[in-house]
Amino acid sequence: MAKDKKFVSEITARDVDFAQWFTDVCVKAELIDYSSIKGFTIMRPYGQALWENIQKIMDARFKSVGVENVAMPMLIPESLLQKEKDHVVGFAPEVAWVTHGGSEKLEERLCVRPTSETLFCDHWAHILQTYRQLPMKYNQWCSVVRWEKTTRPFLRGREFFWQEGHTIHETAEEAKDFTLKILDIYADFAENSLMMPVIKGRKTESEKFAGAEATYTIEAMMHDGKALQSGTSHYFGDGFAHAYDVNFADRNNGISFPHQTSWGVSTRIIGALIMSHGDDSGLVVPPAVAPIQLVIVPVAQHKEGVLEKANELKERLSANWRVKLDDSDNSPGWKFNQYEMKGVPLRLEIGPKDIENGQCVLVRRDNREKTFVPLDQLETVIPQLLKDLEQAIYAKAKANMEARTEQLSTMEEIIASSQAKDGFISSLWCGDAECEEAMKEQAGLSSRCMPFGQQDDVDGVCPVCGKPAKHRVIWGKAY
Amino acid sequence: MAKDKKFVSEITARDVDFAQWFTDVCVKAELIDYSSIKGFTIMRPYGQALWENIQKIMDARFKSVGVENVAMPMLIPESLLQKEKDHVVGFAPEVAWVTHGGSEKLEERLCVRPTSETLFCDHWAHILQTYRQLPMKYNQWCSVVRWEKTTRPFLRGREFFWQEGHTIHETAEEAKDFTLKILDIYADFAENSLMMPVIKGRKTESEKFAGAEATYTIEAMMHDGKALQSGTSHYFGDGFAHAYDVNFADRNNGISFPHQTSWGVSTRIIGALIMSHGDDSGLVVPPAVAPIQLVIVPVAQHKEGVLEKANELKERLSANWRVKLDDSDNSPGWKFNQYEMKGVPLRLEIGPKDIENGQCVLVRRDNREKTFVPLDQLETVIPQLLKDLEQAIYAKAKANMEARTEQLSTMEEIIASSQAKDGFISSLWCGDAECEEAMKEQAGLSSRCMPFGQQDDVDGVCPVCGKPAKHRVIWGKAY
Repeated sequence: MAKDKKFVSEITARDVDFAQWFTDVCVKAELIDYSSIKGFTIMRPYGQALWENIQKIMDARFKSVGVENVAMPMLIPESLLQKEKDHVVGFAPEVAWVTHGGSEKLEERLCVRPTSETLFCDHWAHILQTYRQLPMKYNQWCSVVRWEKTTRPFLRGREFFWQEGHTIHETAEEAKDFTLKILDIYADFAENSLMMPVIKGRKTESEKFAGAEATYTIEAMMHDGKALQSGTSHYFGDGFAHAYDVNFADRNNGISFPHQTSWGVSTRIIGALIMSHGDDSGLVVPPAVAPIQLVIVPVAQHKEGVLEKANELKERLSANWRVKLDDSDNSPGWKFNQYEMKGVPLRLEIGPKDIENGQCVLVRRDNREKTFVPLDQLETVIPQLLKDLEQAIYAKAKANMEARTEQLSTMEEIIASSQAKDGFISSLWCGDAECEEAMKEQAGLSSRCMPFGQQDDVDGVCPVCGKPAKHRVIWGKAY
Repeated sequence: MAKDKKFVSEITARDVDFAQWFTDVCVKAELIDYSSIKGFTIMRPYGQALWENIQKIMDARFKSVGVENVAMPMLIPESLLQKEKDHVVGFAPEVAWVTHGGSEKLEERLCVRPTSETLFCDHWAHILQTYRQLPMKYNQWCSVVRWEKTTRPFLRGREFFWQEGHTIHETAEEAKDFTLKILDIYADFAENSLMMPVIKGRKTESEKFAGAEATYTIEAMMHDGKALQSGTSHYFGDGFAHAYDVNFADRNNGISFPHQTSWGVSTRIIGALIMSHGDDSGLVVPPAVAPIQLVIVPVAQHKEGVLEKANELKERLSANWRVKLDDSDNSPGWKFNQYEMKGVPLRLEIGPKDIENGQCVLVRRDNREKTFVPLDQLETVIPQLLKDLEQAIYAKAKANMEARTEQLSTMEEIIASSQAKDGFISSLWCGDAECEEAMKEQAGLSSRCMPFGQQDDVDGVCPVCGKPAKHRVIWGKAY
């Protein structure tokens, strides 16, 4: 047992040092490795498989609303980046610059894309002619580079993977609708695939994307009470279109400018998943995206018939689930710990006695609950256990969010609460950037969003300045 | 009809100017668009869908031999690139350099990856400890940057998309076997999915990859007789492992260095597909990778019942194939040309009279052969027609390759043949780089490969120097 325990003791306890626990899990569960280049990580096979499962689900959802994938260049000429004023101010300070090609100095330096609005606009200016071509709904899966000062796996890297969707529409209304349709897809994916409760809302002016008219967000709460922005969808109006000469012959034989959106989810969402569901034994991966949904661990595997039966089960269950059989020389205890670390939702144990009794043991990752299951009932029991696990981890994350959310009205209450624990604080707000800034300085809180469905009742005052409120805001400390 | 013809006349005839025909097809079939940055193209939805179909098939093949996907950083520190001498000499002259992050000059410049052997080795040096971890079989789908002077869509770009596989093995034999196993997968994919005959062989010393011990290749012949290297697989021995300190505790408790492979197929293969099968009406896309396998064109679609029937067929056939129904306002003739340009393998035409007769018309893209098919037999006839088309385009490409391949023995014959037409010339060779160089200077031919299965009978002399031959070589002009 000492040997089995050792593996687990290699990670820091979650409530002792949450930040260290997080990086321990990223490395020990073999999601990532650090590279020799500061701020750049390596996505290992297990992390990449997780990301590919996320991609597969999201990609199908995008395609179901008419989105097509494209691929843009990874480099942007400086002059192209500079055409939209707000955008360049937002991004220029944090881009990486290519100045030489081979041994020659380039005439114009090129930045590695931090995001690709400028490239999409440049392309549209080239191909868009008539309203008949609209809408154009594009997406690309790629990596982008932002020269961040402090970096952490998944949460903030100098390079990160994401999807960036970019669309143009004939009317503002259609573009706005699509911005929100994507936000719904994001929220649905977070809640029903990642089992992660999120709050949908709109960002304040000071928190919106550089160049956008409006930014919408889904905000999740991590186990430690901090917020994690898990996906954003932006409405641009026709600002970029004017800056980049993207226009079309409209229905009235005039020239019009299309209305634009962009939206993105990145590998950050893997960080969110880890910090929502993980525990002291490591990851807990929701079944929908788990690289391994069920691991088979043979017990006394040297005994006659055990490996044969384990292999037979692997074959059979692989028809419905992503199954791994670990028939390595390691002890069952070592394997239990290994796949708990990797967050595999279900473990199937089978030994000589089980075979005699025509049964096996299924163990849920989240609560270690054991169930003895007749072998001929596995196809019924496994889906039920996976569903139970999904509901349980969602409920746990939801309970954490509720326990750590307070609705407060005065600055005294807000400061006291934010000093006592991390979480969401819901309050009214006058709408002034100064008061938002004061909230940061006095209480250490940033505005996460103005939550949907809660903006009707703003009868009260701003806790900072005492002026009449215009919005309800969720405040928090954010990753 | 004039209107219909116009569309087709927009592309240059294939036999008038093959190079112009090629770029016309790339643009008019909406595979790519040019970007504002020289040598960087935009993959449009149709091109990207084609590439995604290619990826899906290849990715499954790789996984079937135990390969796992990972993702490495896109940037490589100069010092890391320089550790393997031959490799840096091969790549340093053509890389793009990042020198600034934000407003700061970097302490060490970073190159945008031209290929990632160095990054994989750096990672392995970090994680490899024991022979029990071997083999490690990794792959990544990404883009790479090489600062080429002359660029053409798909064939040579400053950025291109590819997969790069990298593996390490306990023994040289296992690594060599795997190098060839991948070459077989490449050849099988080219021949049976892209319907493109290829020659498998080994590259000469002067044509092999920078840092490799041996490079294997599949070479295809384009319609114009030029060669296109369509995939390469390299065996590295333990050279990189020594340079990058990648080693492990072996079975005898000693320290050993793993044996390494790398292998890649890029979007070049789309260029190969275009130039193998395309004609004066545009693309011809093999069904296995076609974004649209069957397009439904309603005739007299304003008449009652036509669109309903067309929609019903779309629903029904989508269960088995990638189907598009074009119910736009454009004329049927315009649509015929449009989907011929895009190389859609089958066109289904249906109008009021067809509906009365319970039938429709299927038209094959490659030979325009029309078949009247009873609607209830579509599920039987479509697969047969797709198969016929596959065999026909393969046979046509094969016949072209055979007609343009000559086995010659003297320099006079070789020079005369290469002046008369482009194609493959098979001859003996002494093995000296000087004679290979002379073949380039005197006949304008480069060595494509030393073909497998033809190296036993080298009884004769080198056509250049007259010394005894050691190998048989396929020579050609290459893209």
